[in-house]
Amino acid sequence: MTRTTGDSAAVQTLRWKDGRLEMIDQRVLPERFEYRPYRNAVEVADGIRSMVVRGAPAIGCAAAYGVALEARARQGESPDAFFVALDRGFAALAASRPTAVNLFWALARMRAVCDARRAQVPASIADALLQEAHEISAEDVRINRAMGAHGAALLADGARVLTHCNAGALATAGHGTALGVIRSACEAGKRISVVADETRPFLQGARLTAWEMVQEQIPVTLITDNMAGHLMSRGEIDAVVVGTDRVAANGDVANKIGTYMVAVLAQRHGIPFYVACPLSTIDRELADGTAIPIEERAADEVTGFRECLWAAKGVMVRNPAFDVTPAELVTALITEKGVVMKPGREAIARLFGA
Amino acid sequence: MTRTTGDSAAVQTLRWKDGRLEMIDQRVLPERFEYRPYRNAVEVADGIRSMVVRGAPAIGCAAAYGVALEARARQGESPDAFFVALDRGFAALAASRPTAVNLFWALARMRAVCDARRAQVPASIADALLQEAHEISAEDVRINRAMGAHGAALLADGARVLTHCNAGALATAGHGTALGVIRSACEAGKRISVVADETRPFLQGARLTAWEMVQEQIPVTLITDNMAGHLMSRGEIDAVVVGTDRVAANGDVANKIGTYMVAVLAQRHGIPFYVACPLSTIDRELADGTAIPIEERAADEVTGFRECLWAAKGVMVRNPAFDVTPAELVTALITEKGVVMKPGREAIARLFGA
Repeated sequence: MTRTTGDSAAVQTLRWKDGRLEMIDQRVLPERFEYRPYRNAVEVADGIRSMVVRGAPAIGCAAAYGVALEARARQGESPDAFFVALDRGFAALAASRPTAVNLFWALARMRAVCDARRAQVPASIADALLQEAHEISAEDVRINRAMGAHGAALLADGARVLTHCNAGALATAGHGTALGVIRSACEAGKRISVVADETRPFLQGARLTAWEMVQEQIPVTLITDNMAGHLMSRGEIDAVVVGTDRVAANGDVANKIGTYMVAVLAQRHGIPFYVACPLSTIDRELADGTAIPIEERAADEVTGFRECLWAAKGVMVRNPAFDVTPAELVTALITEKGVVMKPGREAIARLFGA
Repeated sequence: MTRTTGDSAAVQTLRWKDGRLEMIDQRVLPERFEYRPYRNAVEVADGIRSMVVRGAPAIGCAAAYGVALEARARQGESPDAFFVALDRGFAALAASRPTAVNLFWALARMRAVCDARRAQVPASIADALLQEAHEISAEDVRINRAMGAHGAALLADGARVLTHCNAGALATAGHGTALGVIRSACEAGKRISVVADETRPFLQGARLTAWEMVQEQIPVTLITDNMAGHLMSRGEIDAVVVGTDRVAANGDVANKIGTYMVAVLAQRHGIPFYVACPLSTIDRELADGTAIPIEERAADEVTGFRECLWAAKGVMVRNPAFDVTPAELVTALITEKGVVMKPGREAIARLFGA
């Protein structure tokens, strides 16, 4: 049986099938569309680290399934052995990627389910963990739909919307965050055209965002990351919408490397800069963006792409995977609870009822 | 006989050998270092258009040799046939690429030599044109050395210098403009480290700048174009030095796409933004940067690189090859006549003795 964890109409980034998790291998899109199977936490952690799955909400969903898989694989063992294995699974998943907070948020939810049922038999705990993983994915789609509805109101008919990286269906359990806003605007009858930064080094824009938009016949134009300023200076961009991997308590936004440059340019040109941000992405523990850990990835992502290597031998490389956009550059956060204009510490606290 | 047209110690981007022009094929660097031969104006125009040779000063030198080659190839014909062929050669070269003004500047110099000798026999005109082409190349290296000496004084010992694209020996007849400033600073005993933007889509930074710096053991770190803002925000860049393809009379600077984004970020972070600019690159006919023609190149440069294609099929593409940085963002122009701080219309007019 295939359980579609996401939006039935859209791309199924993750799906539960025959007792296993399957994830679209995003490293080989758009040339190949194929699912890879995952049976335990370590396999899922490897899938996250190697970017088979990426995008903050999708990573959270994958990690939840990773815990559920580990529990199912170990449910025949003694409670002691079961909990030791589960703890190792949590640790492996927590160590997979450092920046996106949804990973830690999803693991905390799974941990809470586990702790509340600690006296039950492993099989019962495993069932509850799988239900929670399903619920996290289903909830993600509902939240993305709510963000989409709120955010769509910000985009005018005819808007030319720049986006960076892929905050689409492929980055979530379905519908997407930034691309969810664009999808919802299109569903509402607005004619939106998308400008996609290619997003080096992993090329999420060229490969994933462009692919998603082409599939749905939403007009999409690809540019290299260094062209956004030129298009803005020529009046060819009306709004920017991006996703995020972690938002600090003051509204500073960590997102894919290059987002900060887009935000600086948007401000210079008076173009609104919107961040689609489910509440699970807000890390109230961090006072500001300086405390957000920035993952540094391998050099070979920058010296080429896949089997194509082009950089001069002997060159040193930096490869920070994310950057931080200060809150002052953010026009609004788009959340499932509504749009927060000029986000700051107090407005964010109010989202959580504080 | 090989005549080295440039700096004997450095890379010979163009060389005159056995009655032909030879140019390093910059499309296949750094994997292959090979020269391609050119025998007439149309071949050179093709070499410029296809980016066998690129970089504003090098394009100017190549175009001058293109005229000289055409003249030599046609010197046995009647004066009428000779001048018709030469005019066609000028036209082919002028149509090769639109943005870099050095191309038109070099062609105007060659035209003046031709016009001054119109009554002479074709063979004599051809000799004079070849001498002029040699002189334009030799002069380019002298000018780059002068810019280097002026510009080196702007860089502190230990400076971490960001550059975009390749304004090196490969972009000139030798020494380079922006990289010439860095080379001269190193020759003066300063410890300079370079951060090279990879410069999509043609990857001049990853392939050419990195290669030049590695060859000379100047420390160089490669980043993708979207990482410059992050490094600046972390205090890891002390200065920016770039080249230019055309500077308007008011100081607006056209250069490789992405330069504008770097300039905006440098201003935000209080980092000096220097433009190495031989006088031949200044177009006093243009009031400001809005009049600079921006070349739009083929889509397949953006959807992949060489044989490696990665973008989703069906996506539209924009591929402007240059952008314009307004003069207000330029800390100084570095010219062979000295450094012009806060360049504007009057300061630029003074450079020309006006």
